Amino acid sequence: MSAAKWLNKVRWDEHGLVPVIAQEAASNDVLMFAWMNRDALSKTVELGEAVYWSRSRKKLWHKGEESGHIQKVMEIRLDCDEDVILLKIEQVDSIACHTGRHSCFFQKFEGGLNDGDWEAVDPVLKDPESIYK
Amino acid sequence: MSAAKWLNKVRWDEHGLVPVIAQEAASNDVLMFAWMNRDALSKTVELGEAVYWSRSRKKLWHKGEESGHIQKVMEIRLDCDEDVILLKIEQVDSIACHTGRHSCFFQKFEGGLNDGDWEAVDPVLKDPESIYK
Repeated sequence: MSAAKWLNKVRWDEHGLVPVIAQEAASNDVLMFAWMNRDALSKTVELGEAVYWSRSRKKLWHKGEESGHIQKVMEIRLDCDEDVILLKIEQVDSIACHTGRHSCFFQKFEGGLNDGDWEAVDPVLKDPESIYK
Repeated sequence: MSAAKWLNKVRWDEHGLVPVIAQEAASNDVLMFAWMNRDALSKTVELGEAVYWSRSRKKLWHKGEESGHIQKVMEIRLDCDEDVILLKIEQVDSIACHTGRHSCFFQKFEGGLNDGDWEAVDPVLKDPESIYK
């Protein structure tokens, strides 16, 4: 594990993690949200491709390792409190979501406080069955 | 507190919170990251303005209540796992950050794994002293 100063500037939470927003560089679309630990951020810089920490599987997750939907990292930003990271990426196949959609944020709130609901408004670009064989 | 079905669809974490990304509707710029609880999300829908949960102050935080930098909510999205929210907003004065910058993500990673550092690359638009009198 690297002892680089820039890694120490990040304010890792009590689990050693930091929230990460992945934004498509060309469109500025927000594609997904995930977490990184020190190792994941180091690997991301080393590879130039997004590597997250999977909280469910408790291991490093090189995004696209199964699906092929790699995220090439163009820029890495840190927020004012040094506790959130923003990645500007190129998304292979333009599909970031495991549902086969462009972005994970495809459910839009419609209606009001009492009658509102979340509606899936973005198209599935590729059948998930064919992504995860 | 509302018992609306759409609020129950959100997968609140063990602290009753959900991460929220605020994105400027017109530019698609990511301006900030914060948290909401049920009350904050209800109030956001009710007011049409972003209301977060301040984890440090442990209370609802109507963004802009001190600075005047209100966020008018144009759209609310939920991700595929129902545990992250994306707000599309209009940012009053175009300043979201308490440092007086447009976006909180003004620190850019420059360099490599061993010599890298975070550089402030975006301008201060308004002196924070004059924002928080």
